[in-house]
Amino acid sequence: MRRTALQRTVKAMVFDTFGTVVDWRGSLIEDFRRWGASRGFDHDWAPLVDAWRGAYGPSKDSVRTSGVWRNLDDLHRESLERLAPAMAINGLSSADIDYMVRGWHRLKPWPDAVAGLQRLKPRFILGPLSNGNVALLVNMARHAGLPWDMVFSAELFRHYKPDVETYLGTARLLDLRPEEVMLVAAHNYDLKAAQACGLKTAFVARPEEHGPGQTQDLVAEGDWDLVAADFGALAEAMGC
Amino acid sequence: MRRTALQRTVKAMVFDTFGTVVDWRGSLIEDFRRWGASRGFDHDWAPLVDAWRGAYGPSKDSVRTSGVWRNLDDLHRESLERLAPAMAINGLSSADIDYMVRGWHRLKPWPDAVAGLQRLKPRFILGPLSNGNVALLVNMARHAGLPWDMVFSAELFRHYKPDVETYLGTARLLDLRPEEVMLVAAHNYDLKAAQACGLKTAFVARPEEHGPGQTQDLVAEGDWDLVAADFGALAEAMGC
Repeated sequence: MRRTALQRTVKAMVFDTFGTVVDWRGSLIEDFRRWGASRGFDHDWAPLVDAWRGAYGPSKDSVRTSGVWRNLDDLHRESLERLAPAMAINGLSSADIDYMVRGWHRLKPWPDAVAGLQRLKPRFILGPLSNGNVALLVNMARHAGLPWDMVFSAELFRHYKPDVETYLGTARLLDLRPEEVMLVAAHNYDLKAAQACGLKTAFVARPEEHGPGQTQDLVAEGDWDLVAADFGALAEAMGC
Repeated sequence: MRRTALQRTVKAMVFDTFGTVVDWRGSLIEDFRRWGASRGFDHDWAPLVDAWRGAYGPSKDSVRTSGVWRNLDDLHRESLERLAPAMAINGLSSADIDYMVRGWHRLKPWPDAVAGLQRLKPRFILGPLSNGNVALLVNMARHAGLPWDMVFSAELFRHYKPDVETYLGTARLLDLRPEEVMLVAAHNYDLKAAQACGLKTAFVARPEEHGPGQTQDLVAEGDWDLVAADFGALAEAMGC
């Protein structure tokens, strides 16, 4: 079968991770529910998980504004220590906080993710391009079976997405031109920033990332190179 | 079976690559011999390959002294462009130089390497800790089937081994203590530097790395935590 111009141009495919590859919300709620039950904590964890993720944007902004690098584990710890008592979740020990922060290392992939990545792997260099720190992404990949060739973490660039250093830094480390790298993401803002840097773009909707009633990122909102229903369709569209 | 203190302490095993995991000398000579024959170049490539590798130490030193970072592909290109005419290998085009520099991306593993790494993989985080640049190490891993979780390249730290930034930077990115990381290498100088940083150490002799008549690194020359005959014995010693 004749390969398309896009299939011939792209050499590496990098993936937004939280929301695009793994289901952070469902994974954390289920993880904490089981863990809490085993320890006699009986909480509705969804509001905490949503508020925790809600603190992520402001945390990243504070790093960008201050110019002082802190990795995502550190940001998660800081926001959890603030949010838990504010949401009447009291009595968490230091070990409990550690366990919960490490919950982000144990996230589960969406059902189509691993099979799609395995189809893409023979033809394309694969990696996350994620704001997660290296340890988090390495542990996640081992836990979830994600077949990355390399972990492209914001921590390597000391910049969080959507800063240009992350997209251009990934192409530079791979010794590829920006257009030889494709970002796959469920978030339009991320694709917009990548496209502005010259990367190719693919949108995969994850309409349940934020749970029922999600209103954002339900459809492609830019002129992305590909729009695919899931990672199986993405592999198909890339000729794999 | 009861695990040893070493097996319990170590969480990640990182590998010197050139010489320890892959046979750079044999691979390059064979690659260039076939390529040269197909193009009517008939050279004895061994002296060039040996001189090229010989230029590596001084090249690294020049980066350390100048404080200006250049990655290994760049250093390889620079030294090849100098050495080839000096060794009466003339008429190489820019594309020929590219092909030869990229030869370092196509190196072949020692016969025991991949099977040993696969045994270690379920229990330990695995990666190269190499002076190769990221693109080189990613391409090599895909070519040779090396099951890395993450690529720890000198390029990430902008320091070449044996600078401490490489060993401590690897532990830091993994959020591990130095003693939770083991360096596996066929070179005593590398293990000495890693041990001084607090890493665990394993020596695997590669007595044919430099071809017949090799005189260096034939035996362990320090008090390393492990000495293994090959990667199979290494996996065995680590309880895998």
